Amino acid sequence: MILNDNSKIFIETIKRLLRRGAIPHLRKIINKTHGADLSQVFHVLSLPNQHTLFNLIEDTERKGILFSELDEDTLQNFIQKLSIEEIVEVLEKMPTDDVADFIGRLPDEMSGALLKKMKKEGSEEVEDLLQFEDDSAGGIMVPDFIALREDITAQEAIESLQKEHLEVEMPFYVYVVDEYGKLAGVISLRQLVVVPPSTQLKNFMTTDVISVKTDVDQEEVAKIVARYNILAVPVVDGANRIVGIVTVDDVIDIFRQEATEDMLKMAGAGEEFVETKSIFKSTRIRLPWLFASCCGGIIAFLIINRFEHSLHKITYLAAFIPVIMGMGGNIGTQSSTIVVRGLATGRLAVRDIWQVVFKELSIGLILGIVYGIVIGSVAQVKYSTGAFAFSVGLAVICSMTVAALVGSLVPMVLARINIDPAVAAGHFVTTSIDIVSVFFYFSIATYLLGI
Amino acid sequence: MILNDNSKIFIETIKRLLRRGAIPHLRKIINKTHGADLSQVFHVLSLPNQHTLFNLIEDTERKGILFSELDEDTLQNFIQKLSIEEIVEVLEKMPTDDVADFIGRLPDEMSGALLKKMKKEGSEEVEDLLQFEDDSAGGIMVPDFIALREDITAQEAIESLQKEHLEVEMPFYVYVVDEYGKLAGVISLRQLVVVPPSTQLKNFMTTDVISVKTDVDQEEVAKIVARYNILAVPVVDGANRIVGIVTVDDVIDIFRQEATEDMLKMAGAGEEFVETKSIFKSTRIRLPWLFASCCGGIIAFLIINRFEHSLHKITYLAAFIPVIMGMGGNIGTQSSTIVVRGLATGRLAVRDIWQVVFKELSIGLILGIVYGIVIGSVAQVKYSTGAFAFSVGLAVICSMTVAALVGSLVPMVLARINIDPAVAAGHFVTTSIDIVSVFFYFSIATYLLGI
Repeated sequence: MILNDNSKIFIETIKRLLRRGAIPHLRKIINKTHGADLSQVFHVLSLPNQHTLFNLIEDTERKGILFSELDEDTLQNFIQKLSIEEIVEVLEKMPTDDVADFIGRLPDEMSGALLKKMKKEGSEEVEDLLQFEDDSAGGIMVPDFIALREDITAQEAIESLQKEHLEVEMPFYVYVVDEYGKLAGVISLRQLVVVPPSTQLKNFMTTDVISVKTDVDQEEVAKIVARYNILAVPVVDGANRIVGIVTVDDVIDIFRQEATEDMLKMAGAGEEFVETKSIFKSTRIRLPWLFASCCGGIIAFLIINRFEHSLHKITYLAAFIPVIMGMGGNIGTQSSTIVVRGLATGRLAVRDIWQVVFKELSIGLILGIVYGIVIGSVAQVKYSTGAFAFSVGLAVICSMTVAALVGSLVPMVLARINIDPAVAAGHFVTTSIDIVSVFFYFSIATYLLGI
Repeated sequence: MILNDNSKIFIETIKRLLRRGAIPHLRKIINKTHGADLSQVFHVLSLPNQHTLFNLIEDTERKGILFSELDEDTLQNFIQKLSIEEIVEVLEKMPTDDVADFIGRLPDEMSGALLKKMKKEGSEEVEDLLQFEDDSAGGIMVPDFIALREDITAQEAIESLQKEHLEVEMPFYVYVVDEYGKLAGVISLRQLVVVPPSTQLKNFMTTDVISVKTDVDQEEVAKIVARYNILAVPVVDGANRIVGIVTVDDVIDIFRQEATEDMLKMAGAGEEFVETKSIFKSTRIRLPWLFASCCGGIIAFLIINRFEHSLHKITYLAAFIPVIMGMGGNIGTQSSTIVVRGLATGRLAVRDIWQVVFKELSIGLILGIVYGIVIGSVAQVKYSTGAFAFSVGLAVICSMTVAALVGSLVPMVLARINIDPAVAAGHFVTTSIDIVSVFFYFSIATYLLGI
């Protein structure tokens, strides 16, 4: 949560130099700065300034890093002013998975033109990647890996590394394949250096190699990499032939992205991060999510309306609506957050559904009794009517117990039927708890007070 | 979000074999299973069965992986039955940072006894690590890295790797130091293999090496590793001497842990994942967080109480309390989630505070007008009183605008004064919005309807 003060100074420096038109000085700074840092400056510059800066970058690879780091909106605005040739020149220097990702984010006509232009080996690779689902192992893998035959020696393997495979992005594992190209084992670059040079790969490779199929979901791939603490996982086709690898740097991005998505979904604020989008776009994304709450609120209104007669007799019934709704809503949010996050991190499993729900129900009941007594006592002190205080307390207990039940059961059930629990848990849970709380409260009070 | 069906089958198999006492069969399975997978089974077994299984593990290193993977509660219960000697034997096979983490999680008397027992090189290293803050670069680094002098050749470096440094956990970078031990550059194992053997390290090392100081916060370290797509970042002391490295596998854990913490804090459900804790423990953790909502609810009650006169005249005022509170609460949650997550991922910076708040305020106003009209129309249809419908609509607008303002401003301000925005944003924001919504609603209605 710490913000980088240096980046602020850096941005101010760049802005000042741009204002002064100090091009030689700018060129010097820009070419010493990592692409990831440049992207930070880019976001806050005007379009003409973005282009001035971009043209000062001498290393095309660095331009590529910048492309990968820019968010969708900034990128789309920026590249509209670039020619297809200029873009392709940069793309050719980028890792294939980043290119596929980049092209996937563009409007169709633009991506078509780009793919057409990229008449070279790389382009076919990119097209190959585009055939897989965006969020599957196939969609996020890079086709750059080192695979060698099991019968060559360590010495031959090192020689092959010196001659070929120079373009491989992160070469820490050498995959070993049999004569049919099927994945047979893995060795680390380290092992290759320390064994006697004449040892055949099959004699020291690890045969217990963890791999994933192309259609495995990216979150599952990420979990495997995290679980086994490996730097890359090989992706294999139906015949167990290695077709790519997913590297740990992409895994980090997946986890961060999935956590962001879950949080936004639970808050009913879309799926992707929208803060960089325009006010109009953000409003459009958030509007429908609020509609559920609006409908829920209107249902709650209709319920209270049915009890108008009770309200007329005891006006102060209304005064406890907020606290009963609030306590239910908050404990429900606790439960659903614990379940959604627990499922995402693997701390909870769908098979434990009844155990988890029973536990949440118990916690809801205990906390309900505690706060039921507290809030009931407030009612007693204020109105000195035992029956009313009891109604308020009982409503708190019911509301909190049901809220913990709904908050844990709903995401569990959704996960079991393969619906993303985060998307529905947030708004659906709080809205339905609001309705149930209000209904319980008025029913209990009307019944107990005989009104 | 996909759950692994295999793990269910695996757990059932282990349980069945334990019931049958099929020890030889169990031993075979256990010793073929990765430590990370064993931990999954451990959670669901009884204590005696856990010990049976543990004693069947032949490879001490595998026992170490299991230690690192178990959650705090399971671990503490489990190791109580082990002797200090048994524990130390396992710890000696674990990476130093995991040992430090393990010992840091134990009660003081136990960790003291363990450190005392570990009278060997490793133990001093662990004690060295324990002197740093748990969540600083120093606390999470491993002291196992490869550092070589800049004037040796590639050939000498490879020879040194073959003889020494065999214990290094993840040897993908060789750090290069000058004659005073100061960090001068970095080379990858790959570069070492491909340059002519007689080249001196200083002639092909990358001098632009990214490093962090020991006291840097772990989240910041993680962001640096993610940002520059590196596999490890060197940790240096005040004199720029390398003292350890933080590896990418720990970075993944940090990001997952920080995301979990932020989500739980926002939901007011503690800081650490509690689902594996007992009902009593969970209840105790969640109780105080609900107290804020309880107080907020009582304040809302007191406010409505002051307007009892108005309520008495127009009973159906009460019927719109839920929808006005709900709409405010939900848009406030949207805003605060976007800000908290935006700050955590670096998509938003504290310096953009006014820009972000202004944007949220605008969105709140637009959405407020939309839903104000919708809900006002419902009031009009039901009661055909223009002034009342107008009051309801206006209250929705005010509530949603203020909610978006509070929801974005509070976390931004907290981040600026270095308080974790997640911890206070959740409950503080929703509770204060509840109070403000109720107050606005009754004030507007009383004034406009002249009651």
